Amino acid sequence: MKEFKYAAVKEEFEKWKELGLSLNIARGKPSLEQLELSRDLFTALDFDDCIDNGVDARNYGELAGMPSARAYWAELLDVTPEQCFVGGSSSLNMMYDLIAKAWSNGLLHSEAPWSQQKGIQFLCPVPGYDRHFRITESFGIEMIPVRMLDSGPDMDEVERLAAGPKVKGIWCVPKYSNPDGHIYSDETIRRFAALKPAAPDFVVVWDNAYCVHEIRGDYVPFPDILKLCAQAGSPDMVVEFASSSKITFPGAGMSVLAASKANIDYLCGLADAQMISGDKVNQLRQVRFLKDKAHTLNMMKRHADALRPRFDAFLTELDEEIKPLGIASWTNPSGGYFISMYTQPGCARRTVELCREAGLVLTGAGAAYPYGKDPQDSHIRIAPSFPPLKDVELAAKVFCTCLKLATLEKEG
Amino acid sequence: MKEFKYAAVKEEFEKWKELGLSLNIARGKPSLEQLELSRDLFTALDFDDCIDNGVDARNYGELAGMPSARAYWAELLDVTPEQCFVGGSSSLNMMYDLIAKAWSNGLLHSEAPWSQQKGIQFLCPVPGYDRHFRITESFGIEMIPVRMLDSGPDMDEVERLAAGPKVKGIWCVPKYSNPDGHIYSDETIRRFAALKPAAPDFVVVWDNAYCVHEIRGDYVPFPDILKLCAQAGSPDMVVEFASSSKITFPGAGMSVLAASKANIDYLCGLADAQMISGDKVNQLRQVRFLKDKAHTLNMMKRHADALRPRFDAFLTELDEEIKPLGIASWTNPSGGYFISMYTQPGCARRTVELCREAGLVLTGAGAAYPYGKDPQDSHIRIAPSFPPLKDVELAAKVFCTCLKLATLEKEG
Repeated sequence: MKEFKYAAVKEEFEKWKELGLSLNIARGKPSLEQLELSRDLFTALDFDDCIDNGVDARNYGELAGMPSARAYWAELLDVTPEQCFVGGSSSLNMMYDLIAKAWSNGLLHSEAPWSQQKGIQFLCPVPGYDRHFRITESFGIEMIPVRMLDSGPDMDEVERLAAGPKVKGIWCVPKYSNPDGHIYSDETIRRFAALKPAAPDFVVVWDNAYCVHEIRGDYVPFPDILKLCAQAGSPDMVVEFASSSKITFPGAGMSVLAASKANIDYLCGLADAQMISGDKVNQLRQVRFLKDKAHTLNMMKRHADALRPRFDAFLTELDEEIKPLGIASWTNPSGGYFISMYTQPGCARRTVELCREAGLVLTGAGAAYPYGKDPQDSHIRIAPSFPPLKDVELAAKVFCTCLKLATLEKEG
Repeated sequence: MKEFKYAAVKEEFEKWKELGLSLNIARGKPSLEQLELSRDLFTALDFDDCIDNGVDARNYGELAGMPSARAYWAELLDVTPEQCFVGGSSSLNMMYDLIAKAWSNGLLHSEAPWSQQKGIQFLCPVPGYDRHFRITESFGIEMIPVRMLDSGPDMDEVERLAAGPKVKGIWCVPKYSNPDGHIYSDETIRRFAALKPAAPDFVVVWDNAYCVHEIRGDYVPFPDILKLCAQAGSPDMVVEFASSSKITFPGAGMSVLAASKANIDYLCGLADAQMISGDKVNQLRQVRFLKDKAHTLNMMKRHADALRPRFDAFLTELDEEIKPLGIASWTNPSGGYFISMYTQPGCARRTVELCREAGLVLTGAGAAYPYGKDPQDSHIRIAPSFPPLKDVELAAKVFCTCLKLATLEKEG
């Protein structure tokens, strides 16, 4: 461990600056080694092999997606093919579309389109996924933060707030939550299924982005939230999302929306005015390549092999340089794409700023909070997945210096 | 020509019914021969050839699309790459998104989101594209029909109606209009560019779906509507769309939105909350395969070779069986995907119904009109592109019998 005195740390910082580095750990992007795992996707589908259950992937039709793609996701998410709508390459886009349709037409149980109701609110577990929050923000929906616990969102708060008739839903990442990497506990999930919101069209957006995305250890199974909600008498309250963006190619995989049959029918009715179908050739190509759940899980182990050393490198540096000082805490996730860092209050923004000066780009401080406002100014999201390992090691060192400097400035 | 008496025609009809046919000329779908033209698309892109102008198609980023895809469309549409936003596989979806964003956020020059304004109206040249009309219908926007002339929409009417402050836009298919196959005249296009609507956010949706889609004769160039609008002082009034769905694979090509730089910036700002980018791997694959405009036009000649005999077969039958009777008129388009058929008033719905009974599925009568209501009940859209030639020939015969029978029933 290096000396924890302003002058010494400042000197370290200046040395980093002199190197003119250009490092980026801002977004959860797979590395080149991970892209390499999907090399054979390019040749996985033949022109002459495009008919699937009587549907020609190469022509118009089949709004809800290729039958084998719906079956693939049904197995992965432990739901039925009829509960799966397979769309384009982006699950984020599908989530946006869900809110956009609530806005223009209302959801299945809406009394009116959301655009015709005043003061609509949405629950945002914090820290959370910045792109979720930007969707609700772009519609002018008021966002109410709810604290994340190790077990998932604070369900006492969720239950209390959902009793408000203007509260229309909640953003969830149930497995390896973005950015904390928590897995919602069985108790949390049970309470979600049993939720009795005041709004008839309250929607639990269940973004299962990291459903098979372990970094360490064996695959962790997850309960089928659709079934649990149905058993609790609220079959239409939840809409689940996933995609193969971080299984094959980011932004070029296939996305899925899973929901009750009634929701699928309703949403297909609206989507029928929007599209003829997603890109079925790509859907079929993805399925031919990924095959099934067992094959996918094997592939995810190889993704983990690429991710683990990067996480380890960053965490080792934090353990060596920061832990003894007791000036911050952080997560050590078993899956997902992020390390969540909690600095002392008032130090996150400055740390990110110093990193930028030293040539290391991080997600903007506060990004994991609605409107980008972290009330404590203490959270930083670290995404070590993309750069080569040597760069991650370097980034970790730069980060530690900047964190120390920001802390010392504050204590100053 | 067969006998034009009720008993004889009825007998013909019954004979068709007995055959138990299953024919479909309802949608503008490319045939298998046309799909065959894009066989090499499947192998057009290598895993190791995915970097384009420094952008990796296989990872996140680049909201407005791959640089070479933007350049490809810029050449095809005679605009600049900066004016092109290349998205997912469906231009229809992009048009829906445009209206959805007008609804939730407003367009560049909107005084308020459309959802917060009452009584919004849209102009619909009739007959027109049913899927356009379903978009505006799904938002509850009132649709006002405008008559199509051989030269394009009746511009006297368009200019008169656009003076209404609640009229927010118009659906256009400027080249080989759906379903009439007309090319807007230079005069019509000049008047569109010079249009001075009352609404500041009036949008001319310029769906250039058939921009390179000749059936007969040489490629017909078209003026750059963006430039004409800019020259007329309304650079942001028009948004143009196109896609490679009917160049490569329907529903699996790439789509483009072309607009003024100010519109692109504004729409990118909104799209940034919706998506990270379209499927850039597919964009790059399409570009590698289609190469450039010259290569694309060559390929379109081969599409024409597949389409022409089907159109000819249907038209020949109409000429032989219907023309001498003078009971209907129809278009003989040089491009696009449709023959527009005008029966005697009150005969279209019945003709379609009789065809269905005889095993021939057509687009629903009236589909080419807002709310599916053809006031004359005289229009039928014929899409002979998809079935094998022998089936098109058979379909034409069945159609002629049913048209004659419906006409005789009416005259009854």
